[in-house]
Amino acid sequence: MNYKMIMYMMGQIFKVVGLFMLLPAAVGLYYGEDHVVTSFGIPFLILVTIAFLFTVKKPKDNSVYSMEGFVSVAASWIGVSAIGALPFVISGEIPNYVDALFETVSGFTTTGATILSDIESMSRSCLFWRSFTHWLGGMGILMFVLAIMSSNDSRTMHMMRAECAGPNVGRLVSKSSFSARILYGIYIFLTVSEIILLLCGGMSLYDSVIHACSSAGTGGFSTYSASIGHFNSLYIEMVIAAFIILFGVNFNLYYYLIIRKFSLAFKNEEVRVYFGTIIFATVIITLNIMRLYDNFGGALRHAFFMVASTITSTGFATADITQWPVFSQTLLVLLMFVGSCAGSTGGGMKVSRIMIIVKTGIKELKYIVNPRAVATVKMDGKPVDRDVVRGAASYLVLFLMLMAVSLLLITLDKYSIEESASAVITCMNNIGFGVGAFGPNGGFGDLNSFSKIVLCFDMLLGRLEIYPLIMLFASKRR
Amino acid sequence: MNYKMIMYMMGQIFKVVGLFMLLPAAVGLYYGEDHVVTSFGIPFLILVTIAFLFTVKKPKDNSVYSMEGFVSVAASWIGVSAIGALPFVISGEIPNYVDALFETVSGFTTTGATILSDIESMSRSCLFWRSFTHWLGGMGILMFVLAIMSSNDSRTMHMMRAECAGPNVGRLVSKSSFSARILYGIYIFLTVSEIILLLCGGMSLYDSVIHACSSAGTGGFSTYSASIGHFNSLYIEMVIAAFIILFGVNFNLYYYLIIRKFSLAFKNEEVRVYFGTIIFATVIITLNIMRLYDNFGGALRHAFFMVASTITSTGFATADITQWPVFSQTLLVLLMFVGSCAGSTGGGMKVSRIMIIVKTGIKELKYIVNPRAVATVKMDGKPVDRDVVRGAASYLVLFLMLMAVSLLLITLDKYSIEESASAVITCMNNIGFGVGAFGPNGGFGDLNSFSKIVLCFDMLLGRLEIYPLIMLFASKRR
Repeated sequence: MNYKMIMYMMGQIFKVVGLFMLLPAAVGLYYGEDHVVTSFGIPFLILVTIAFLFTVKKPKDNSVYSMEGFVSVAASWIGVSAIGALPFVISGEIPNYVDALFETVSGFTTTGATILSDIESMSRSCLFWRSFTHWLGGMGILMFVLAIMSSNDSRTMHMMRAECAGPNVGRLVSKSSFSARILYGIYIFLTVSEIILLLCGGMSLYDSVIHACSSAGTGGFSTYSASIGHFNSLYIEMVIAAFIILFGVNFNLYYYLIIRKFSLAFKNEEVRVYFGTIIFATVIITLNIMRLYDNFGGALRHAFFMVASTITSTGFATADITQWPVFSQTLLVLLMFVGSCAGSTGGGMKVSRIMIIVKTGIKELKYIVNPRAVATVKMDGKPVDRDVVRGAASYLVLFLMLMAVSLLLITLDKYSIEESASAVITCMNNIGFGVGAFGPNGGFGDLNSFSKIVLCFDMLLGRLEIYPLIMLFASKRR
Repeated sequence: MNYKMIMYMMGQIFKVVGLFMLLPAAVGLYYGEDHVVTSFGIPFLILVTIAFLFTVKKPKDNSVYSMEGFVSVAASWIGVSAIGALPFVISGEIPNYVDALFETVSGFTTTGATILSDIESMSRSCLFWRSFTHWLGGMGILMFVLAIMSSNDSRTMHMMRAECAGPNVGRLVSKSSFSARILYGIYIFLTVSEIILLLCGGMSLYDSVIHACSSAGTGGFSTYSASIGHFNSLYIEMVIAAFIILFGVNFNLYYYLIIRKFSLAFKNEEVRVYFGTIIFATVIITLNIMRLYDNFGGALRHAFFMVASTITSTGFATADITQWPVFSQTLLVLLMFVGSCAGSTGGGMKVSRIMIIVKTGIKELKYIVNPRAVATVKMDGKPVDRDVVRGAASYLVLFLMLMAVSLLLITLDKYSIEESASAVITCMNNIGFGVGAFGPNGGFGDLNSFSKIVLCFDMLLGRLEIYPLIMLFASKRR
């Protein structure tokens, strides 16, 4: 394994995150928050120092394969989370380091689970940093590095796979740095569009930027304890719901739209199932919760927002789902596993992976009824590569196994099986809220430190799709 | 599809079950319970009449393949459950037919989940029938028919697969009727041995027979509300725990012992993992529950019994696990999924299927770390057939999908997500108790009729391993 190149890539990532730390510092200075000089200054210096040491000379052997990509991404994400937690600790706003780490991992992984019980008491710089980690983690930090790197290296494609979600990732164009630039261009365009539309709805610039960053990463951190429910505005809810759904679509489709390959975009099976699932679940939940609300419209509004927030793994809330019928809560928990499209900023198992798994199951049934029938699993009319089919099934198995182990570890804490399971499910799928004690109002602060660290791993496992972390720890023995 | 042969096989099964109904009737007459004349006489007449009509002439075309086997088994199990429920209704001891059906399906599928709240008030004939369905369902009703059928037909092997549990079923000897006879011989020998050992422990003959039948099928129905805890005898608990563990071992191994192929028996990987899991879980749970009991011995005794009862899917109880720490409860729920060995009377996913799935996951990890490494999944040192590997993964997926749908339907009832999930898990894995409202003291009687029917399907899906039922309903359209 090319350790020098791994350190070089980590240095690049640290440099970018370090520079981005100047943004919340600037926000803090604007609002007269003097603590930002130390609380963001110190981690900034740590990051740029490490970055300088790691990138002072470019390795002669610049070969990178998936192994190097996976390991540098896993190590970088852990590193930037560990250092990115410092502003909360130094400012004294989250004095406990484990709490701050949980909040930062929850940010970068776009989970949105919070240990805070009084969000309104936080400084504006810290709240900005908290939501900005969503934005960075959503499209990927290494992806950003690739986007700004000189485009003379076509071998970095291997590295993109480590941060890109889904069963099968293809680059858009031959050079990965150009692909990354296109993706980040779309990402920035959508984020800015959302900021403008939120401003039009009467939201302040500060709140608009924060909620657009949280939407873009499908993260879920808000500046208010009542989350989006705070605004009590149908317009704002619909803008945010529409954008999180758009951020949950495979970004390749937007590229197809840009280059006018409309048929490729509109015939995509995954997106159709994704939208179909949203509509279906919204209708079912609306009918189920109708008696809790005054009229059909009110029920539809909350059902649609919560379905969008759950399937895209955002975790914004307008309603307290713990008050909803058990059927609706269970349906939402099942949607958490489904997640959004591959190649989006959303979490979960990804719609296409679930589709491949279900189609394989149906194929197997056909085979048992008629062993002579030769059936292949198809997506978008084309047969799916056997490696991808096998990979999807293996991912499900690994995911469930790691979930079972995490669940056992969390049950050592003081919660019921249901609450423990919901904490693990919401963290591994990067949603942000569960049921019971971990409803939309948070509650993760009451976990013990051991549970918080287990859940930090779960969030990273979910965001990076398991393999990078396993390789980081497996590679040490080689 | 050969419908005539399917009806012929169903007729044979109905005949056998009809004749076996005379056993509880005899028990009732011995204890002076006059209701047996009608309560068992009527279903007996129905069964033998149908059997006569279906078997009056043997079809000329006696070809049977897996399709015919699967469909006749699924239809027979539903048929004998529907008619086997009548004694409870006619005697008036379970007046509601859906309740009686639930109890009978729970019996035949060896689940052991009960709708009864006052078991002690039942007549001896009905309690005998209730536990005897465990014994019949444990090894399989069609298997019994094969054992007593004339052995001139070697094509019935296809049918054995439908009732035999596990990822890969091989016959012991070339003729399936002879295989079935060997298996039933071992089954009867073990059952009688347990009866004798229980008698030695001071249990009455009636209780010994009932508890031996329930152990043999790894079912879990007892004659007392307090289940095995009623006897409060270490000897009885250890005898029963030992036997349910033995009934959870692949019966082929006993055959290997009989024909002195000891190496084949002792080198079996599945059995090693099965015993290893029992020891490991017992130690962990003992440590976890120690503070609830006076001493280490008491904790060990209850932990061992409950682990044995759970992993073998029996469902006997000596302790109220709802009082145990959440960690131990969760570990038991995870054991429910593991289940016992393939080719045993136990339920769950089966140890070997879990092993194949885990080994496939590990193989996939190795492949990702080093794509040039060619790894195969091995069991007992031999490579596993690719169809079996694929089948195990598909089974898991189908199992979880059906579980998710059942869970959604059960949440329409009045229970929490945790309780609803535990009801579905315990029924699909054929255990008999869950957590919360469905703890070892029953509680299934409080479900509404719709939920009970959903759970009846779940129990059948678990016992027959999904495919026969799907084929029964899929084949109608052909």
